[in-house]
Amino acid sequence: MAAASPHLVLLQNPTKLTSKTSIFTSIPTRNAPHFPPIRSPKPLSITSSTQLQDRSAIALSAQSSDRVFNFAAGPAILPEVVLRKAESELVTWRGSGMSVMEMSHRGKEFRSIIEKAESDLRSLLSISSDYVVLFLQGGATTQFAAIPLNLCESGDDEVDYLVTGSWSDKAVKEAQKFCTPNVIWSGKSEKYTKTPDFDSLEQNSNAKYLHICANETIHGVEFKNYPVPKNKAEILVADMSSNFCSKPVDVSKFGIIYAGAQKNVGPSGVTIVIIRKDLIGKAQGITPVMLDYKIHADNGSLYNTPPCYGIYMCGLVFEDLLNQGGLVEVEKKNIRKAQILYETIDKSGGFYRSPVEKSVRSLMNVPFTLEKSELEEEFIKEASKEKMVQLKGHRSVGGMRASIYNAMPLAGVEKLVAFMKDFQARHG
Amino acid sequence: MAAASPHLVLLQNPTKLTSKTSIFTSIPTRNAPHFPPIRSPKPLSITSSTQLQDRSAIALSAQSSDRVFNFAAGPAILPEVVLRKAESELVTWRGSGMSVMEMSHRGKEFRSIIEKAESDLRSLLSISSDYVVLFLQGGATTQFAAIPLNLCESGDDEVDYLVTGSWSDKAVKEAQKFCTPNVIWSGKSEKYTKTPDFDSLEQNSNAKYLHICANETIHGVEFKNYPVPKNKAEILVADMSSNFCSKPVDVSKFGIIYAGAQKNVGPSGVTIVIIRKDLIGKAQGITPVMLDYKIHADNGSLYNTPPCYGIYMCGLVFEDLLNQGGLVEVEKKNIRKAQILYETIDKSGGFYRSPVEKSVRSLMNVPFTLEKSELEEEFIKEASKEKMVQLKGHRSVGGMRASIYNAMPLAGVEKLVAFMKDFQARHG
Repeated sequence: MAAASPHLVLLQNPTKLTSKTSIFTSIPTRNAPHFPPIRSPKPLSITSSTQLQDRSAIALSAQSSDRVFNFAAGPAILPEVVLRKAESELVTWRGSGMSVMEMSHRGKEFRSIIEKAESDLRSLLSISSDYVVLFLQGGATTQFAAIPLNLCESGDDEVDYLVTGSWSDKAVKEAQKFCTPNVIWSGKSEKYTKTPDFDSLEQNSNAKYLHICANETIHGVEFKNYPVPKNKAEILVADMSSNFCSKPVDVSKFGIIYAGAQKNVGPSGVTIVIIRKDLIGKAQGITPVMLDYKIHADNGSLYNTPPCYGIYMCGLVFEDLLNQGGLVEVEKKNIRKAQILYETIDKSGGFYRSPVEKSVRSLMNVPFTLEKSELEEEFIKEASKEKMVQLKGHRSVGGMRASIYNAMPLAGVEKLVAFMKDFQARHG
Repeated sequence: MAAASPHLVLLQNPTKLTSKTSIFTSIPTRNAPHFPPIRSPKPLSITSSTQLQDRSAIALSAQSSDRVFNFAAGPAILPEVVLRKAESELVTWRGSGMSVMEMSHRGKEFRSIIEKAESDLRSLLSISSDYVVLFLQGGATTQFAAIPLNLCESGDDEVDYLVTGSWSDKAVKEAQKFCTPNVIWSGKSEKYTKTPDFDSLEQNSNAKYLHICANETIHGVEFKNYPVPKNKAEILVADMSSNFCSKPVDVSKFGIIYAGAQKNVGPSGVTIVIIRKDLIGKAQGITPVMLDYKIHADNGSLYNTPPCYGIYMCGLVFEDLLNQGGLVEVEKKNIRKAQILYETIDKSGGFYRSPVEKSVRSLMNVPFTLEKSELEEEFIKEASKEKMVQLKGHRSVGGMRASIYNAMPLAGVEKLVAFMKDFQARHG
């Protein structure tokens, strides 16, 4: 049995616990924005290791010594405090006599879990009642089909796509089966290092929607603001898989936001879809029932058995994010982490290089190359020895990639940049 | 932190461990059938609580006192020894420095997990190399669409369905979108209490496949043998969601076997498909990429991010089943459990009633009613006080249902029948 994390603390004067109360011990969060609670009677708090000290000075001990700093692009690092909580209630969840993995999805225990997860997500992103939140399966790849199947009447309907990397490219290819997509801008000729100038985009007025990938996981290109859809329906659709809940987002600008959970908010196997209610209920006849938003919306994501344990884990992460102060605070930490990593690259005199245009560099996925590419293997090997793993870039682009999602402590990035400087000193 | 199960023991002379070795401590299994290992160098063993004592005399202490006997139809009870193992390595998996939930699905750690899970499943069911094993998402409901999309060339293609309960009925309705299904037999008029006489079935010779639901979870009707498909292609397709791995099955009789994991082999969110290789690669043009078997077969279930943690849990369960002696031994236990429950019903003088024809009563799901239906609520309430939960029948049929999957200890069924007799004595 693993020892409890030294960073978990017990409250001396815990907030009174209710049946809908915090999954974690409770510490008041200073400067937390006041998100309106949707279903929970009051915002619930959590102790995360980073709250127990000055955030700007997180020590290397930000996680237990037997854990590595995992820079994988997804599935990816999760908050240790969340994992410890899951460990503590894995066999028997809060007096229910069973694991979350064993619960009927229609029982009161699991219903309380999924309702709280949705409520906390609504608080985090200030999602209005005009939108439905769905917890589905199949990853963003399933949504690549579900979106045209639900928003287009037939294969003749036109839609617009911006292609800023591999993922938006995949989305277009899948959409071709169910509608007529126009690629109105592609960054391919510039190796996916930019986003377009929005003013010069020629959108099709009869397009059913405009689709973007808000953050390209492989290429490290992130939209810092969003194009206004000029199609008749004024619908913007965004794949936010790899920057979901990494910063505040004005949901009301979007018709659909969708995201695989396995980057920032949970394990793989859960896909979150946030969809404006008026877009539901118009699926094509050839839509498999599991891809029909209306079926899931009408049944509160419980039409068939949902990925219960994954939803539970997402709920723990949402509560952790709320208790860090919400997405305003989370974004500040993400900016700080990205800043020191990009600075190290830019100030290396060309030893390290980031291919991405500065204004659209991702806060989440930082691809970089070594001027002496023959050193890349050695870099990865040495980093691994120092307990920093999964730094190899995607096979389609090569080089390195450091994914620094919400759950990556500042200490992990500080250790990485210290290693990068030392590596340069020895090999520069 | 929960205490370790008193039923877990450490070996005094453990088998030498290798990188592909057991996830559990190892105890030799007497009378275990010799399944040919597929990829693992040798069969791997496990300590399960039921191995540590005479199986015919499992005491009420077959699980920890803080756990209930959970008769839910799915998600359902899991072996406590598996949950304890998962608990022990949740935060850090075997020296990897990370949780299974955090692992890149393309990393060597997760590859070893999915390969061992497949290998152990192949051993359990003696699956030949003519078949591909896929770990997918979306439940059986997604397969209801995937099967006609992959096996039929167009909506005009005919297929045959036997309808023995709610689930095969749902399968037909979904298939109507993608092919022309013929219901060649339905048990609806007899309230789904039978399977057909195979000899009198009029199969369509041009049907692309014959589809059955091997065990109807709601109605408790289970095929004890299987119809021979008389269509030209000679393809039998079976939904085995609720009796998968509950007994030996001759896989070679089937074109496709599919099953949601959340009954017998794991948590919800994983769907297992066993498909004959020659049936792969002919999907209709309107098939979403995530429903195309070829994509998943070509990529070893790793085309996109799979439900990694669920697959890991299935792997733990497969190893547990192997180490109980494989499915021959598992079936013996399931027969014994079902026997004492059906006997109690049949010998109650009509106080309890099973609606299902005796020859096809399910070993997994046992629906029953009370002659005095006004007592049903009291029955469920009292049982719940005795830590036996989720006994309410499906809303579509009413009454009670006891699901007694692999992981339900004999002690749980013994406790239930003792309660039933006592309840009858008090209310009869």
